[in-house]
Amino acid sequence: MAVNLNAPRAESLHAVAGVRIGVAEAGIRKANRKDLTVFLLDEGAAVAGVFTQNRFCAAPVQVCREHLAHGGVRALVINTGNANAGTGEDGLVRARTTCIAAARLLDVAPEQVLPFSTGVIMEPLPVDRIEKGLPAALADAQPAHWLRAAEGIMTTDTLPKAFSRQVQVDGVTVTVTGISKGAGMIRPNMATMLGFVATDAKIAPGLLPALALELAEGSFNRVTVDGDTSTNDSFVVIATNKARHAEIASFDTPAGRAVKDAMQEVARLLAQAIVRDGEGATKFITVRVEGGQTGAECRQVAYAIAHSPLVKTAFFASDPNLGRILAAVGYAGIADLDQTKIDLYLDDVHVARQGGRNPAYREEDGQRVMKQAEITVRVVLGRGDAADQVWTCDFSHEYVTINADYRS
Amino acid sequence: MAVNLNAPRAESLHAVAGVRIGVAEAGIRKANRKDLTVFLLDEGAAVAGVFTQNRFCAAPVQVCREHLAHGGVRALVINTGNANAGTGEDGLVRARTTCIAAARLLDVAPEQVLPFSTGVIMEPLPVDRIEKGLPAALADAQPAHWLRAAEGIMTTDTLPKAFSRQVQVDGVTVTVTGISKGAGMIRPNMATMLGFVATDAKIAPGLLPALALELAEGSFNRVTVDGDTSTNDSFVVIATNKARHAEIASFDTPAGRAVKDAMQEVARLLAQAIVRDGEGATKFITVRVEGGQTGAECRQVAYAIAHSPLVKTAFFASDPNLGRILAAVGYAGIADLDQTKIDLYLDDVHVARQGGRNPAYREEDGQRVMKQAEITVRVVLGRGDAADQVWTCDFSHEYVTINADYRS
Repeated sequence: MAVNLNAPRAESLHAVAGVRIGVAEAGIRKANRKDLTVFLLDEGAAVAGVFTQNRFCAAPVQVCREHLAHGGVRALVINTGNANAGTGEDGLVRARTTCIAAARLLDVAPEQVLPFSTGVIMEPLPVDRIEKGLPAALADAQPAHWLRAAEGIMTTDTLPKAFSRQVQVDGVTVTVTGISKGAGMIRPNMATMLGFVATDAKIAPGLLPALALELAEGSFNRVTVDGDTSTNDSFVVIATNKARHAEIASFDTPAGRAVKDAMQEVARLLAQAIVRDGEGATKFITVRVEGGQTGAECRQVAYAIAHSPLVKTAFFASDPNLGRILAAVGYAGIADLDQTKIDLYLDDVHVARQGGRNPAYREEDGQRVMKQAEITVRVVLGRGDAADQVWTCDFSHEYVTINADYRS
Repeated sequence: MAVNLNAPRAESLHAVAGVRIGVAEAGIRKANRKDLTVFLLDEGAAVAGVFTQNRFCAAPVQVCREHLAHGGVRALVINTGNANAGTGEDGLVRARTTCIAAARLLDVAPEQVLPFSTGVIMEPLPVDRIEKGLPAALADAQPAHWLRAAEGIMTTDTLPKAFSRQVQVDGVTVTVTGISKGAGMIRPNMATMLGFVATDAKIAPGLLPALALELAEGSFNRVTVDGDTSTNDSFVVIATNKARHAEIASFDTPAGRAVKDAMQEVARLLAQAIVRDGEGATKFITVRVEGGQTGAECRQVAYAIAHSPLVKTAFFASDPNLGRILAAVGYAGIADLDQTKIDLYLDDVHVARQGGRNPAYREEDGQRVMKQAEITVRVVLGRGDAADQVWTCDFSHEYVTINADYRS
């Protein structure tokens, strides 16, 4: 049961000129399942990516980094059912074999193909099935297939995740459309499981890597479901440069800001969608920390709250057991934190003042907010002017059920 | 259902000369419950403690630190049902009032009393009930009451936790007896919720603070249930100096080692008992990390594994989903970790070799180990000679049920 998230309608997702998408059933882990997705990019597209900081990063992540450095990307091949992680040297060979197979069919170099895998860890990728499935995926390729792609990359997700925005630049309509997947093993560190955002905007190619990083910082790097940073997190930004406006040479212009804002909004919605559809989630929680000395320490406190099993189960129970939040603030690792300066709010309700219970706080007010499906926890540290926030969900029986299923 | 843990028998717990214990029902949160425990120490006892590193430390922890610095401790007053944490200035006053009340009855100074509280956070401590309950607790004081004390400090624990050992020093019998409590909000950082170890050994007073730290490092600082460091963690070591052997001036002597080993064993058993009785625990798991450059990085990896909700739910399911362990190793924060050097074992089963699946590994072997109630996960990092270990439990439906209960 995703929290305030609906399946997107196909017609709400604008095609991005220069991007075609095909999906096939390759039988990678289970039969009759769309498990192979291909993005085909016209020549001239710029691509940048940010990837997991997990040192056990998957083989496809290692190959993606190499191939992105090479440039000229023309295709993305994404499989579900198998993460090709914890697979050693053999896994790297299989990821490269995937690229070679796609490159041969498309008549490009293997370095122009980026591989992505998601699914179970430490099992060999059935690369023969991917090779067999590729022709059908390529034959399926259409600009309008964004919803099919969002469905094709799902694993434990209950809903496909896709968002689209259009902005005007020099009187030209520019489109931004993206998809994401992920519901568990979610605590992106650079990017999430899989996120793809494409635009037809014409952007100076040198700007894209920094933009990808900045978009991730405002989206995937601010969500967590269970604190488990995946081996396969990948977030890819594509600019096809097809729109006929003047090239954006800086994001500090009205046109640059319009495009970047649209991209940031799509990235944020995609990242939040992962939390809304987090394994077992019944609530969507914004943890905002203000009054810190640095953004980093605000994030540190926000993640301590967002990862606390005690806080997350209290949200599941709609129990304003707010001492658990204060305890998490206390152990977040700020050595010189002064508890007598800390205030805590649940939405508009002022719960704790100067480190103690606010005398005006009434339990029924906390209870009212805790029953909502969307809640903002706001902590004021009283140490400075920095602020940051993360988005997370609660921790329910359903999470245990999903993850205690044999090999979910 | 605690894992391989039974209630201690009263007769297995040796009294410690110089320590008397009394318990009473003060009705602090619920009626008809032993919720007030008093330790009375003869003059001449040395006392040291280590306390939570949580910056939101509870009022009694702050008062304990002050009073320990003053020295000459004669009594410990422990209540359950209310943690007196997140209570600001008012909470400090209530903790001091508890000490004043006990000091008056015992004709000592308030600084000679240490207060301990455990229970719900952010509610005012009903200090009037403690004052009313104290005379009954004092009247109950007996050297043989260790089991009563272990029962008196229980909260969500399903079993009392107490261990006792005796060693010979210069032909004199020296006793070490201790109790602990705690089942949730357990990731001690210096010490756990409440742990008390007393000995009648004669130990040079200057040695006690460092000993308390060392004992905590080998016990309470190596266990975790849910990663939530409590506001009230307190571990206290008492030496009554009643045994008639030559004073121990160093632990680097046969007598010193014998006493320290007995104390370390009792502390370790008490800490492990907390994990065995962890909220919802069905398995007791030792996470051992070897081949690190430093003990600290071994602990970092061990805690990443021990805190991963995905790893913990896989243990609950007896599912050898070992990629989840590798993923946790990868995100533990060692920046220059080389995944191709990592080996993973489940008890005697060699699961992963050089970062990939061990070709000789068979799923049924992993399955066999995962079904056991006690499991050792061993990770070899291949970076150096350091090693360390932590003890933890799995993550079950029962954990969610316990913590989603209104105000557990």
